[in-house]
Amino acid sequence: MPVGELRVSSQPLATEPPPNNDETWVWAQIKAEARRDAESEPALASYLYSTILSHSSLERSLSFHLGNKLCSSTLLSTLLYDLFLHAFSTDYSLRSAAVADLRAARERDPACVSFSHCLLNYKGFLACQAHRVAHKLWTQSRRPLALALQSRIADVFAVDIHPAARIGKGILFDHATGVVVGETAVIGNNVSILHHVTLGGTGKACGDRHPKIGDGVLIGAGATILGNVKIGEGAKIGAGSVVLIDVPPRTTAVGNPARLVGGKEKPSQLEDIPGESMDHTSFISQWSDYII
Amino acid sequence: MPVGELRVSSQPLATEPPPNNDETWVWAQIKAEARRDAESEPALASYLYSTILSHSSLERSLSFHLGNKLCSSTLLSTLLYDLFLHAFSTDYSLRSAAVADLRAARERDPACVSFSHCLLNYKGFLACQAHRVAHKLWTQSRRPLALALQSRIADVFAVDIHPAARIGKGILFDHATGVVVGETAVIGNNVSILHHVTLGGTGKACGDRHPKIGDGVLIGAGATILGNVKIGEGAKIGAGSVVLIDVPPRTTAVGNPARLVGGKEKPSQLEDIPGESMDHTSFISQWSDYII
Amino acid sequence: MPVGELRVSSQPLATEPPPNNDETWVWAQIKAEARRDAESEPALASYLYSTILSHSSLERSLSFHLGNKLCSSTLLSTLLYDLFLHAFSTDYSLRSAAVADLRAARERDPACVSFSHCLLNYKGFLACQAHRVAHKLWTQSRRPLALALQSRIADVFAVDIHPAARIGKGILFDHATGVVVGETAVIGNNVSILHHVTLGGTGKACGDRHPKIGDGVLIGAGATILGNVKIGEGAKIGAGSVVLIDVPPRTTAVGNPARLVGGKEKPSQLEDIPGESMDHTSFISQWSDYII
Amino acid sequence: MPVGELRVSSQPLATEPPPNNDETWVWAQIKAEARRDAESEPALASYLYSTILSHSSLERSLSFHLGNKLCSSTLLSTLLYDLFLHAFSTDYSLRSAAVADLRAARERDPACVSFSHCLLNYKGFLACQAHRVAHKLWTQSRRPLALALQSRIADVFAVDIHPAARIGKGILFDHATGVVVGETAVIGNNVSILHHVTLGGTGKACGDRHPKIGDGVLIGAGATILGNVKIGEGAKIGAGSVVLIDVPPRTTAVGNPARLVGGKEKPSQLEDIPGESMDHTSFISQWSDYII
Amino acid sequence: MPVGELRVSSQPLATEPPPNNDETWVWAQIKAEARRDAESEPALASYLYSTILSHSSLERSLSFHLGNKLCSSTLLSTLLYDLFLHAFSTDYSLRSAAVADLRAARERDPACVSFSHCLLNYKGFLACQAHRVAHKLWTQSRRPLALALQSRIADVFAVDIHPAARIGKGILFDHATGVVVGETAVIGNNVSILHHVTLGGTGKACGDRHPKIGDGVLIGAGATILGNVKIGEGAKIGAGSVVLIDVPPRTTAVGNPARLVGGKEKPSQLEDIPGESMDHTSFISQWSDYII
Amino acid sequence: MPVGELRVSSQPLATEPPPNNDETWVWAQIKAEARRDAESEPALASYLYSTILSHSSLERSLSFHLGNKLCSSTLLSTLLYDLFLHAFSTDYSLRSAAVADLRAARERDPACVSFSHCLLNYKGFLACQAHRVAHKLWTQSRRPLALALQSRIADVFAVDIHPAARIGKGILFDHATGVVVGETAVIGNNVSILHHVTLGGTGKACGDRHPKIGDGVLIGAGATILGNVKIGEGAKIGAGSVVLIDVPPRTTAVGNPARLVGGKEKPSQLEDIPGESMDHTSFISQWSDYII
Repeated sequence: MPVGELRVSSQPLATEPPPNNDETWVWAQIKAEARRDAESEPALASYLYSTILSHSSLERSLSFHLGNKLCSSTLLSTLLYDLFLHAFSTDYSLRSAAVADLRAARERDPACVSFSHCLLNYKGFLACQAHRVAHKLWTQSRRPLALALQSRIADVFAVDIHPAARIGKGILFDHATGVVVGETAVIGNNVSILHHVTLGGTGKACGDRHPKIGDGVLIGAGATILGNVKIGEGAKIGAGSVVLIDVPPRTTAVGNPARLVGGKEKPSQLEDIPGESMDHTSFISQWSDYII
Repeated sequence: MPVGELRVSSQPLATEPPPNNDETWVWAQIKAEARRDAESEPALASYLYSTILSHSSLERSLSFHLGNKLCSSTLLSTLLYDLFLHAFSTDYSLRSAAVADLRAARERDPACVSFSHCLLNYKGFLACQAHRVAHKLWTQSRRPLALALQSRIADVFAVDIHPAARIGKGILFDHATGVVVGETAVIGNNVSILHHVTLGGTGKACGDRHPKIGDGVLIGAGATILGNVKIGEGAKIGAGSVVLIDVPPRTTAVGNPARLVGGKEKPSQLEDIPGESMDHTSFISQWSDYII
Repeated sequence: MPVGELRVSSQPLATEPPPNNDETWVWAQIKAEARRDAESEPALASYLYSTILSHSSLERSLSFHLGNKLCSSTLLSTLLYDLFLHAFSTDYSLRSAAVADLRAARERDPACVSFSHCLLNYKGFLACQAHRVAHKLWTQSRRPLALALQSRIADVFAVDIHPAARIGKGILFDHATGVVVGETAVIGNNVSILHHVTLGGTGKACGDRHPKIGDGVLIGAGATILGNVKIGEGAKIGAGSVVLIDVPPRTTAVGNPARLVGGKEKPSQLEDIPGESMDHTSFISQWSDYII
Repeated sequence: MPVGELRVSSQPLATEPPPNNDETWVWAQIKAEARRDAESEPALASYLYSTILSHSSLERSLSFHLGNKLCSSTLLSTLLYDLFLHAFSTDYSLRSAAVADLRAARERDPACVSFSHCLLNYKGFLACQAHRVAHKLWTQSRRPLALALQSRIADVFAVDIHPAARIGKGILFDHATGVVVGETAVIGNNVSILHHVTLGGTGKACGDRHPKIGDGVLIGAGATILGNVKIGEGAKIGAGSVVLIDVPPRTTAVGNPARLVGGKEKPSQLEDIPGESMDHTSFISQWSDYII
Repeated sequence: MPVGELRVSSQPLATEPPPNNDETWVWAQIKAEARRDAESEPALASYLYSTILSHSSLERSLSFHLGNKLCSSTLLSTLLYDLFLHAFSTDYSLRSAAVADLRAARERDPACVSFSHCLLNYKGFLACQAHRVAHKLWTQSRRPLALALQSRIADVFAVDIHPAARIGKGILFDHATGVVVGETAVIGNNVSILHHVTLGGTGKACGDRHPKIGDGVLIGAGATILGNVKIGEGAKIGAGSVVLIDVPPRTTAVGNPARLVGGKEKPSQLEDIPGESMDHTSFISQWSDYII
Repeated sequence: MPVGELRVSSQPLATEPPPNNDETWVWAQIKAEARRDAESEPALASYLYSTILSHSSLERSLSFHLGNKLCSSTLLSTLLYDLFLHAFSTDYSLRSAAVADLRAARERDPACVSFSHCLLNYKGFLACQAHRVAHKLWTQSRRPLALALQSRIADVFAVDIHPAARIGKGILFDHATGVVVGETAVIGNNVSILHHVTLGGTGKACGDRHPKIGDGVLIGAGATILGNVKIGEGAKIGAGSVVLIDVPPRTTAVGNPARLVGGKEKPSQLEDIPGESMDHTSFISQWSDYII
């Protein structure tokens, strides 16, 4: 696969537009869900009011929730809240990415019963939004602060994403515990990544040394992808796979070491986009060694 | 393996009996251990008194400990304590399952030096007890609260068990970090599950889509079991295995993709119950590809 | 490989010397880095002063940071601070090991931009220093306290190291989430261990049942090593490998089950020390099954 | 005034009755007020749900609120919550006194806009309820715990009431800061006490050495009453007075040292009950020295 | 004294102007002081950075400090910070009053060594600024929130000011513990009030029932002023006085009950403004009863 | 009274001696009391272990308790603990003064049932010990830190003692709420001071402007002493008195303004030392105006 063809969408950088209709609609849904849940479950009402219902916007709710989740005795919630609120309020692309991620969880994860469920409870969603702010700080050369944020995310959510890593929109980090994403990794749009996935480096060499994940890729639980390799758009990486070289677009790689389903020379072509269909296991019949 | 034969014990639902002798005996042991440790280690005495020695029953001690472990600035310890105490006080099966789990850790894990060690320090044990309460809330249609609890367990213990998942008694989640158990998964009695084990789904399809684990199964570290597959009673899943189809009872599946030790046609039969013997490695001599 | 040849360095036990030049120099670097960062990033200055700049020595800074990271509502920060400070102040080997670990991260991890970055943010580094104190308590027969510390480390950093495990100097636990090290495991000097690595036991047998890792070994992400096996000095274990038997020195084992690169009979010999070079992937060309 | 005539009602000791109509009605009012306020003020809704609306009874709400107000890093909220809940649940007189105190604040203090305002915000009310529990512990010979509670009340509310002091029902401690009530003091029913009031002892003598305050007394801000003196029922003590000897019923004592309004021999008789009318200043015209 | 002549300045209500020169200058002084102290006292540097040096403006610093001081487990610091920041950012008069109060402390209290000392440490200053925000909420009919704030101020600072009370600028609440200010009280500009001072009501009557304090008044420690009385501009109330009727401008009232120095008919006239000169005791020679 | 005769003992400055027999004996008593209470009251055992029984010395226990009481979200307990421990460990006079104060409470206050009761629960005792450390910092020119400590003591205990104030040994601050002691005040040995007592200044003049309290003085609740006046040794100041000029030794001053009991010319001489006898009220018969 020619490198030039890899489709890794660059992140949007627009910072000015007001909440668009989509954001407004999702936020209205979230408030309606929270109001319904607060009414049916008094024990949770205080939590729902403090995290969602007392806020006038998604960015305020998210900043409050992240500030309280990520704070520590030496990094106070007020400081973090301020930091997040400033970032989400001034950078439209952060809000729009959050909305796209909420939609991704809602559409792709059958266990995601509501937008508010994702906003409040998905550590992958929360880690990703906090990472986006850390990434923004990194690009502004506020590196010590970005790294401190990475550290808090790694402690609290067990999700370790280097602030320099570039991540697209419509991302689902499902379960998320143990995800590691290295400094020069790039993740495209509409990618779904399960827990324990590593996008790691090749050792102590500096420079561009981490995977590039194309749009619409699905990476199964526990997969390890190492080095500056390219996972083509719409490819699927099986759970537990160890991938050390490029994977062509719309193909499936499985196993340790990973092999292409259908064979290296003429791999089977996927018809849907696995990052969106979340089909983990349809390749089984083609996986010849699977012999139980 | 005929589906009908899968032995997944249904959870007990009895809610009324008083502490039985077993529960009384274990609680007495725990108090004696804590008293001994408090005397020998003044630096820990305060901790032991607050978590164990000041309480009049196992359910109070456990509710206190879980409430303090799982609380956050927006979900207060008093609220959680109340929730746990009500559940453990009114549902005998929750207490009896906790006692069975304490016994499982004590009997199966050579590093488990005492019941109190498990009660206080085993994140797998604590996550499992908290899950049982979340599951009870789920079955009572208090879903938002159940999901909030799941989220706290996932943050604090890095153990992510969907509240709908059904789990038997005498369970050992050893080390436990990174365990993920999906919504329609079922785990039988006397099962031992190591860390990083995934009982995952098959994608975005709804419905019954997660593994069913029979009684007495042992699942090694990092094993990934995906889809509505059946792991027969007394089966053993090797560390790091990726299992996508059924495994017959009392057989061993290893590798990525998993193969049966002894071959698909006539797999070797295990004589003891691996979930109880915790024998991880005796199949090595039979694993033909293992060639170092 | 003859057992006798395994080089697992015993840990230094000297407790008396004052800070040597190396320790002094590293601490001076850390303060200079923190001062520079505090000046450039006011939002982080309070954090840097409380964790580093207000302290007169590395052991005070580290004890403060660990005390605040590992405390809970039932194990107060003041108690833990006292415990750590006493250990680091009275045992020279703990301080010297911390310095060696800081150097290891700085030299081997290209993402480690400064000593202070490692000291403040690397959960692997922090978990390892806290483990060393837990280990010291264990050897002093203060086992309940050692186990309580292990539990806090496992909760906060998702790193689960039994306090009895012996660990050398110059260790890099990179990313670290999900690392599990069993009771009788031994890790030599200058070892590099990625996240999700398990040095596990073989079941419920008591006694010596965990791996022995020689000096200079590199263990890739997600590798699982089980049983009382020996990983010879300078060996390399590929990411995602499952290793159940010995690996000779300066060889590379990959896969599930693990095979030696170059073949069992005449494995390729590594020329550099992988635990230091951190070369994860150079063996790819030799890994014959890798067929994408 | 004959000592025998002093009317200091003994406290009710009944422990069994269920919530009576009065308690039920007040609790319903409190919930309605809190619901109204939560709707009109989203920023306060979380607070109102956690303190009032999520609770099923006044005793739960009060126990939760006191537990969270009085806790410290060494006396956890869960422990205090448990203690308060047990006391309020098992002793009917404590609940009935709380209701009487809520009514007293609502009726006598024009600044008290609602029952919930008093329940949540009046430190005098909260200190008094916590004192009643401390007093109960004292009478049960659980003195160290009672004294620890006194200390927390004194720190948090700046209200220092010895747990042995006996206090009636329908008490209003208005503003409350600085109130000190000694060990052998007795306060009757329907008494109103402003801030900075001292019911102190006479020195280091042991035994019965503190004031006895009759029913319906009003004690103005900053009044100091010392020694085993009797303040007759319906008496009024002017702000800033220093009282060292008995005050007859339904008379007014003012000044430092205190004098009876109308003269020692034939003091003016009050017609209403000052503890209920809260009339602080109607005696001015009769206070002859008052000459501005 | 004709009521109409009482000079109680109405509070400024302008909300728009940017920081004027005065505010800018004071904030620059505060930062310089904090920087100097942080350099000379490393143990305090973290505190000074978090409270002052990390902030870009006085309103941010003050909001942060108040949010962290007044928060509780049920009223989170992030919520309070948000509330304070919004108030101080949008209402110029709040900032300008804070600056005037800082100047008042600096000029009138010889123990006030710097502006930052007052900003960080003076509970009277902090209580007053928080009250101004509560007052603003009160005037916006956000009464439950205003009362909740009053309650927190009363708990944390032992200063109990009803949110409806109107307070001018250039106020010094010195020491402040125990100050009580009632609902309909009004305090003019440049007033100095010592600790334990009560501006109280006359009982349970509703309506306008608390003192009106003119500009430049000095009220000594422990003075109690009750009822809708007028303390004329530039008057002085001696420590421990009990005042129940009007005091003419520029006169001194002392004692319990209070008398005018120089006599009721022709009281001595003060030449300076006592609220600014803070002269507590110069009237002694004129106080005839003072006979030690 | 000639100024030269005022006996205000200078504070001891010795810093070296080891715990003497007295200190050892009191600490042994405290431990024995705490052990007895922990056994009889399990609900308090954790508190007693963390504050007393887990510590090896009085200075550690006191430093831990003060650190946890006085900490805030911006002044961490570990920092304060360190500060207190260093002060108490290196300055013998601080420890010896603490022991003398414990003895004073035990001997003079009939409500003080044990040394541990005072150590844990007396806010006056704790405020005084923390003040001594603040005073030491002040004399070392660490003024910003001393003032920060004063502020925390004022917030937490409502006791406001300027760090420059000099205080002797054997001091009882009984109840303590509202005590204010100014910058140039001096308090001798064996003084007893009740709550709401002010040792205040005379206004905005700089320099020596606060009271000097001789040895053995007793100052009753709510007394206000203003200006650089001398209260002679063994004098007694009645509750609620306002004292603006000197009081001779062994005489009693009462009232507002204060008068000498027995008359200005030939005041009654006290035979015992009121600061030790705590006799508050024996002068009543001689107080002629007291006419109820």
